[in-house]
Amino acid sequence: MKTVKYTKLVLLLTYALSLASPVRTQGTAAEVTAPGQLNLMPVPASVQTQTGRLPITANFNVAVKNYADDRLRAGIARMLTRLGGRTVLTLPADLATDESTATLVVECERAGDPIPSLSENETYSLEVTDKQARLVAPTVVGAIRGLETFLQLLQGDRDGYYLPGIKIQDQPRFPWRGLLIDVGRHYEPMEVLKRNLDGMAAVKLNVFHWHLTEDQGFRVESKKLPKLHALGSDGLFYTQDQVREIIAYARDRGIRVMPEFDIPGHSTSWLVGYPELGSAPGPLKIERGAGIFEPALDPTREQTYKFLNTFLGEMAALFPDAYMHIGGDENEGKQWDRNPQIQAFMKEKGIKDNHALQAYFNQRVLKILQKHSKKMIGWEEILHPDLPKDAVIHSWRGPASLAEAAKKGYNGILSAGYYIDLMFPASQHYLADPIPQDTTLTAEEAKHVLGGEATMWGEWVSPETIDSRIWPRTAAIAERLWSPRNVTDVNDMYRRLSVISRQLEELGLTHEKNYGMLLHRLAASENTGPLRTLASIVEPVKEYHRYRMRPQTMLSPLTGLVDAARPDSAMARQFASNVDALLSDAPRFALYRPNIDQTLVEWRTAGLALGPMIDRSPALQEARPLANDLATLADAGMEAMSHLSAGDPVSTEWRDAQLAKLDEAAKPKGALEFVVINSVRKLVIAASELSQLKTTSPGEWNKRITNMVSPAASPTTKP
Amino acid sequence: MKTVKYTKLVLLLTYALSLASPVRTQGTAAEVTAPGQLNLMPVPASVQTQTGRLPITANFNVAVKNYADDRLRAGIARMLTRLGGRTVLTLPADLATDESTATLVVECERAGDPIPSLSENETYSLEVTDKQARLVAPTVVGAIRGLETFLQLLQGDRDGYYLPGIKIQDQPRFPWRGLLIDVGRHYEPMEVLKRNLDGMAAVKLNVFHWHLTEDQGFRVESKKLPKLHALGSDGLFYTQDQVREIIAYARDRGIRVMPEFDIPGHSTSWLVGYPELGSAPGPLKIERGAGIFEPALDPTREQTYKFLNTFLGEMAALFPDAYMHIGGDENEGKQWDRNPQIQAFMKEKGIKDNHALQAYFNQRVLKILQKHSKKMIGWEEILHPDLPKDAVIHSWRGPASLAEAAKKGYNGILSAGYYIDLMFPASQHYLADPIPQDTTLTAEEAKHVLGGEATMWGEWVSPETIDSRIWPRTAAIAERLWSPRNVTDVNDMYRRLSVISRQLEELGLTHEKNYGMLLHRLAASENTGPLRTLASIVEPVKEYHRYRMRPQTMLSPLTGLVDAARPDSAMARQFASNVDALLSDAPRFALYRPNIDQTLVEWRTAGLALGPMIDRSPALQEARPLANDLATLADAGMEAMSHLSAGDPVSTEWRDAQLAKLDEAAKPKGALEFVVINSVRKLVIAASELSQLKTTSPGEWNKRITNMVSPAASPTTKP
Repeated sequence: MKTVKYTKLVLLLTYALSLASPVRTQGTAAEVTAPGQLNLMPVPASVQTQTGRLPITANFNVAVKNYADDRLRAGIARMLTRLGGRTVLTLPADLATDESTATLVVECERAGDPIPSLSENETYSLEVTDKQARLVAPTVVGAIRGLETFLQLLQGDRDGYYLPGIKIQDQPRFPWRGLLIDVGRHYEPMEVLKRNLDGMAAVKLNVFHWHLTEDQGFRVESKKLPKLHALGSDGLFYTQDQVREIIAYARDRGIRVMPEFDIPGHSTSWLVGYPELGSAPGPLKIERGAGIFEPALDPTREQTYKFLNTFLGEMAALFPDAYMHIGGDENEGKQWDRNPQIQAFMKEKGIKDNHALQAYFNQRVLKILQKHSKKMIGWEEILHPDLPKDAVIHSWRGPASLAEAAKKGYNGILSAGYYIDLMFPASQHYLADPIPQDTTLTAEEAKHVLGGEATMWGEWVSPETIDSRIWPRTAAIAERLWSPRNVTDVNDMYRRLSVISRQLEELGLTHEKNYGMLLHRLAASENTGPLRTLASIVEPVKEYHRYRMRPQTMLSPLTGLVDAARPDSAMARQFASNVDALLSDAPRFALYRPNIDQTLVEWRTAGLALGPMIDRSPALQEARPLANDLATLADAGMEAMSHLSAGDPVSTEWRDAQLAKLDEAAKPKGALEFVVINSVRKLVIAASELSQLKTTSPGEWNKRITNMVSPAASPTTKP
Repeated sequence: MKTVKYTKLVLLLTYALSLASPVRTQGTAAEVTAPGQLNLMPVPASVQTQTGRLPITANFNVAVKNYADDRLRAGIARMLTRLGGRTVLTLPADLATDESTATLVVECERAGDPIPSLSENETYSLEVTDKQARLVAPTVVGAIRGLETFLQLLQGDRDGYYLPGIKIQDQPRFPWRGLLIDVGRHYEPMEVLKRNLDGMAAVKLNVFHWHLTEDQGFRVESKKLPKLHALGSDGLFYTQDQVREIIAYARDRGIRVMPEFDIPGHSTSWLVGYPELGSAPGPLKIERGAGIFEPALDPTREQTYKFLNTFLGEMAALFPDAYMHIGGDENEGKQWDRNPQIQAFMKEKGIKDNHALQAYFNQRVLKILQKHSKKMIGWEEILHPDLPKDAVIHSWRGPASLAEAAKKGYNGILSAGYYIDLMFPASQHYLADPIPQDTTLTAEEAKHVLGGEATMWGEWVSPETIDSRIWPRTAAIAERLWSPRNVTDVNDMYRRLSVISRQLEELGLTHEKNYGMLLHRLAASENTGPLRTLASIVEPVKEYHRYRMRPQTMLSPLTGLVDAARPDSAMARQFASNVDALLSDAPRFALYRPNIDQTLVEWRTAGLALGPMIDRSPALQEARPLANDLATLADAGMEAMSHLSAGDPVSTEWRDAQLAKLDEAAKPKGALEFVVINSVRKLVIAASELSQLKTTSPGEWNKRITNMVSPAASPTTKP
């Protein structure tokens, strides 16, 4: 039996593969899967490959041993549907009665927690031999995690489908691995939530953080205070039956549902129905803009707490999770400053500033939550000397604040680094660690770091686009939170992410599916080729620049090119990788040359073809400067390539002129930016540095070029 | 003011377009939209173009006049969302208060029928000038129809979005224009039904025929007889709340919801819970196969009618539509023949055969329906001398049986010709007319023909594939049922269908979206190029041959290549059109030559590339013979092309050998068949007929070649 650690195995196979085909003309080294290479995401804690393989045929069946319940059976049935879908085999629907001959035996000890909890045991082991696969887990939730691993192991060749011989021992690094979906700013229909819960389960995330209220919308039905949803939601809210449906759906997949009711700020939509709770006189309308708004609950009046007791009590009964998130973020207290009664109250009580006033508010809310048997969690603003130790801190500023809280004895989770709405690439999220390598926390203190959550803030997502903002990048975050800390190979992550991304689409997610529709609608044409070329190498601007560059309201259509374009361009990664390979191949410059030439020609052609397309489709007007830039990039690249090929250096004048043009092209337009600029810069600089070749080795030479392209100029490397 | 009838306008524009670009290298003549060309589907009863245009800007707004209600306001809001989506303009959400300055004025007289009905007035008129658009309709439903036309008129150019000046007077030719969805054989989730209702509304269909029960599934909750859904559905049924949700959703769009409870046959799933109603002893299991099955209700026992009175009474209260469909089809009565009690009953009552026994049953059911204030409709088997005249006949055998019923004074609707599950092309459905040109019906008799329904039978559709079986072809059927009889230009239908198909995807339909996912899953790879090439020119076999060639059960995955492939291949149409153009261009053979050459090379390359792809993906095994055929087609075509280009005739031996190979390739494999064979046959025959050129004109020559390719050999022209 051969025993190799997973990451080493991957390295070996990648190396073998690179030897086998040193000059490839399609795809990149990073994204080709070798036969037998594993596509597990998240990477399990321990993987040992074994010889042999377990064939998967139409006779595949599953037996359960020791403990089984409806949740386990439903989980097995879902696995069978997906396995049948991939193999096109009609698999027996009934469980096998004879454990000894079953293809897969699932052996559980117990149900696990009746309500999914932070202390849920998610451990499982999976051993696959020639004869059988055995999935052993203490709880049904562990088994459900293992079934996902089982599906990811499926492979095929001329002899049919099979699972490779393997021994996996697995458990999560962190117990809190979440995805926040903000349905306040834009409502998301039930099927959007369900398909995202399926996606979460596929990558072993276990907390759905349901951000239910915002200035722009109050999305949950309150039977006791019905003006909340009736006046605060434009009719777009979840009934309590629907909430229960989501909770049951999530529980079936071993996922907690933690609601957030963001107070005292972010509460305009609450105050539309109940203006008397506000810190300034009403009436208010549902907020339609993006940003931080002034309305806040009045923390000085007993009526506010009476109201919160009623509402949070109702919600505590509706949501069974042990935790309730009370937000607490971004309340700037401007209304408090201007309200004489509030000022008088602070003076009377000796509350020295707004932060202290909010701490007072939190104390009161905490008591309400305790009364309803809920633990409190809030954004890191809630951290205050008076905060009791059983509150959980949700960090959006960084691991440092998390560490600070941990040192004070607070449990915390990290979302800084996982703000997927900021449009950064998966690689960046992947390397953000809740407990970084250089942490100053002791082992004991580190236990206070419970995990993290990806945050899908809802300003600029619609049901059509939200999946492409969540997936596939969130799978990389899921791996960070589940897998051992030393699993950090970005290239291998991207290789696996491309496989997992396709599998996520099988669950109904639309991150790829809707791309074509969005482009077709924009082009108002069957032929979207040139637009697709452009869209494949631009990305929405990072951080919160979109709103500044291209202001919209919550009622605006999210159907523009910036909505069709997606973060983390695979085409740009591929082009960068090809250019680096080419430059490393000095002075031949042959590696990937046909690819690069072909890509540049495609850009040139698309740049030309986009003109008439934009003429016909006014919705594409904002793409016109990008189409011009695309031609500029192509021209610069093609000329550089011809000089590189000929070994004929360009003049420094030409180089500087091109770099100036590239700087112009690098400026965002329509809230979109090219993510291939640095690669073209490298080609231009390389063409001017040809004379250096005699004194520099190819590797050093490539490094030198890379250093000459300032990282600050790259939009993807901005923090 | 210029006044041209719509069809003539289209012809003129198509002609002008063909003059402008006689040799095109991309797309086909039939599918390129000229600027200013209309993309209305269904074609309105009367269209007059006018000079001028109405700009659509961010100031676009809508005023209502005379009558307005929530349904109208919701319809306008949906239209605004879609208009905003296409234009990427943030449009005002509120209705305009000043009618004189509003961009669009919607003027209704009344709500229309409280429950959508057969006698609903769907008339509207729409006039667009430089200043304003006015939509005038007697009812809100008419206005909702007109809003769809309004959206279809949107166009764009360098000056922005606009509607062309136009005057439309419109009403449907038939009052009953339906889509049947069979959810019995395969359950379809709520969102599938909703997005299809949206699609129906977009093309002005007005009856959702909900085929709720089958041998393979009982899909509606019965509170009074709960074993029906509890034991007959695998848990996949619609709750009564969900039924009401669908009815409300449909009503909002002016669509009737007519349920079907298929009896006395097709009733296995009923008998799982209530075997005592059957004509043979139980117990029964839910049927998993496809076909016609024996179980039938026992029509001789009073208990049966008591049961039906309870159940149909409950359903009559749940479904407000005036009609209830009782199926009545395909009961072969084998259980009746074998049941001595039933035989004794027949003897005693003087019932001479099973048809008469079913007529007796229908009489009894009719009385039950009348008691619950429902009109009866059933498949044409229910036609019998004793059937009262207010029953409606649903023809699945053809317009002749419909005419026969009409002559006897029965109202009827046609589904023969609209069986979209049979995989025939839209062109064929399009030309099937409920009242054919050669009808023998008098004008008075013809009034009994109420319309028709497309039927989406559910044996081989899943939520992933059903949309691609319904759309876009059903839009052509919708046009047949709405537009004047003389609107029959197939090329123009396809031109518009391609535009409408994209717009249907904007509503959430997945006929295009899921195609890529299905191919990715099959290929288990990012690169599906060669598979896509193959899939684009094969179609699932027609009629009911799939089951015979590739048996599956209702529990089988519908994820194979036959499921990914779609009916009515646009690529095959394009290739056929290109080949015809080339052959008409004898002896130059230059028209579309580059396209044809490029296509053939693509087939050859794909044929080669598919081998390794199939090796890696056992689910594609059944594509291997198709991959070989693809190479054969390409080789034959390329050799023929080179002879045609050189003016060098091939030998008759070569021709016959190629035709024999093509005959082999024409045989279905994996329940798929190539739909480009005839075009390749034409090339091969043409290459052997070059010497005839001197004596024949190019047009005649092409006709001659076309005649030599036997229509019987074409899978798409089989009836």
